[in-house]
Amino acid sequence: MSKTRIGILGYGNLGRGVELAIRQNEDMELVAVYTRRDPATVTVETPGVAVRSAEQLEAGNEPIDVLILCGGSATDLPAQTPVFAGKYNVIDSFDTHHNIPQHFERVDEAACAAGTVGLISCGWDPGLFSLNRLFGNCFIPEGSDYTFWGRGVSQGHSDALRRIEGVADARQYTVPVEAALEGARSGTHPNFTTREMHTRECWVVLEEGADPAKIEAEIKAMPNYFDEYDVTVNFISQEELDRDHAELPHGGFVLRSGDTAGGHTSVIEYSLKLGSNPEFTASVLVAYARAVARLAAEGQKGAYTVFDIAPAYLSIHDGAYLRSHLL
Amino acid sequence: MSKTRIGILGYGNLGRGVELAIRQNEDMELVAVYTRRDPATVTVETPGVAVRSAEQLEAGNEPIDVLILCGGSATDLPAQTPVFAGKYNVIDSFDTHHNIPQHFERVDEAACAAGTVGLISCGWDPGLFSLNRLFGNCFIPEGSDYTFWGRGVSQGHSDALRRIEGVADARQYTVPVEAALEGARSGTHPNFTTREMHTRECWVVLEEGADPAKIEAEIKAMPNYFDEYDVTVNFISQEELDRDHAELPHGGFVLRSGDTAGGHTSVIEYSLKLGSNPEFTASVLVAYARAVARLAAEGQKGAYTVFDIAPAYLSIHDGAYLRSHLL
Repeated sequence: MSKTRIGILGYGNLGRGVELAIRQNEDMELVAVYTRRDPATVTVETPGVAVRSAEQLEAGNEPIDVLILCGGSATDLPAQTPVFAGKYNVIDSFDTHHNIPQHFERVDEAACAAGTVGLISCGWDPGLFSLNRLFGNCFIPEGSDYTFWGRGVSQGHSDALRRIEGVADARQYTVPVEAALEGARSGTHPNFTTREMHTRECWVVLEEGADPAKIEAEIKAMPNYFDEYDVTVNFISQEELDRDHAELPHGGFVLRSGDTAGGHTSVIEYSLKLGSNPEFTASVLVAYARAVARLAAEGQKGAYTVFDIAPAYLSIHDGAYLRSHLL
Repeated sequence: MSKTRIGILGYGNLGRGVELAIRQNEDMELVAVYTRRDPATVTVETPGVAVRSAEQLEAGNEPIDVLILCGGSATDLPAQTPVFAGKYNVIDSFDTHHNIPQHFERVDEAACAAGTVGLISCGWDPGLFSLNRLFGNCFIPEGSDYTFWGRGVSQGHSDALRRIEGVADARQYTVPVEAALEGARSGTHPNFTTREMHTRECWVVLEEGADPAKIEAEIKAMPNYFDEYDVTVNFISQEELDRDHAELPHGGFVLRSGDTAGGHTSVIEYSLKLGSNPEFTASVLVAYARAVARLAAEGQKGAYTVFDIAPAYLSIHDGAYLRSHLL
């Protein structure tokens, strides 16, 4: 079997997750990690994997079949994915839902011009949760959608806490409200406010001399992030944060419920419980990187999302195996 | 919008479910119901829908885009699907897992020769549960699979009960064992015996003079169907059976759990709670019939399963809509 040669751009939590995920996919090979840092300062775990400067990607002749972009959605991916789709087959986990259409168009233009394949917004949300929203809407055409996140660490909300003056460090958990989950499962199509679906749980380390009451009030009033939620704030020491909140678990639930034309209720529920958000996201990226390589080998080009990928393309196994073992 | 013209072959519970499901899909139109009975004896619910003899399909010139085959897997579909794939685009819900590879080959041969598309084994198991087994294996390459069915009516087991001498009527519910479900969700990869995963609950109407103790013993000893399970047998009147057990609910759970190479546990759970098994199965068939029509319009041919269908093909909406609303 000739292996699919993977490059990783960006060696943070997600990039490290991709490195690990490739070890569980024997048809994949990690060729190089590309970094914007000085490559001499970056040590990867896997023996024999090169660390190269991100600049070396520019010429478009690195020996990789798919480049997995592991940067952030705020500034990295909007700039990187269209550029590198012009040189390589690429995949990203761009997750700013509102800007997906524009990102898709820019990647599509670059990939069509270059004859490459660019798969965007791949992970679990957007990604697997999106698939389940789509499937739910197709199989239950008249119904209600629910997406719950958690219990898990929201890195965006943790960052927002850390930007508050007087906060030394912080971790924020998004927690689905059990009663709302039960309501969504009941098939009675309840409508929920933002506050009714999730609570937010903050673990905060204060800087010396900071006023906990003032900081708690500031957190609870923060627009968009916290003001529409029931929020609990717990003050702990850095040691406690490091000991009890070092992991990045996450997950959630996608539900679709509705009635058939015969008046019978159907409920579809999809859920994820993830010990490590970046490691699982990386596993999803690696499976879709396999699909990208296959589409490219067929001569396809342009931008894709998870909606456009036939599930069989994700598997290491061929169609005959899948039909006899998993159908 | 030009509608996709659907024909239904076989007007039992599933055929009636397809008729209902088409009403929730405005791009679909039911043209005719084909039956092996005397068409004069069959009345369909939808005004304007023709009832025709199944023989009229033979010439291959009925005005339909997709024929949805609603017969049984034991004898109807193995004979019908390859024959009609030679004349029309077809879709079936063939569910004898063991014979799927052979059925696929026969449909593929006929469809390739005729230039048609034939999608087999579509429904929720095989079908949506298969998809989730495949996705689970791709995103958690090292892990354990669990499929639980129920709580729901097993028509095969109900039929088996009715074949016992002295049984006038019966209904059998397959029930997942809650402790096993919790074990599967725990991520500890337990192994279960058949008995540990499901129980079987029988509701039996006796013929006059039949011996309940003898029949209960006969049920519990029935090989394959009941002998490997904990079985409860309840004797009730025909009136009670008709009043309390007339519906065909079903559902179940597909779980995949395993560890990332970083040692973090991931658990994926997919579940269905269906008020009507045939009506939901029909909804799935109609969504996949849309995909069949699209593949055929593209000039594709041959046999397909749910593994081969890009999710976007299932939706009434176009890619831009899906990316902005569901991704």
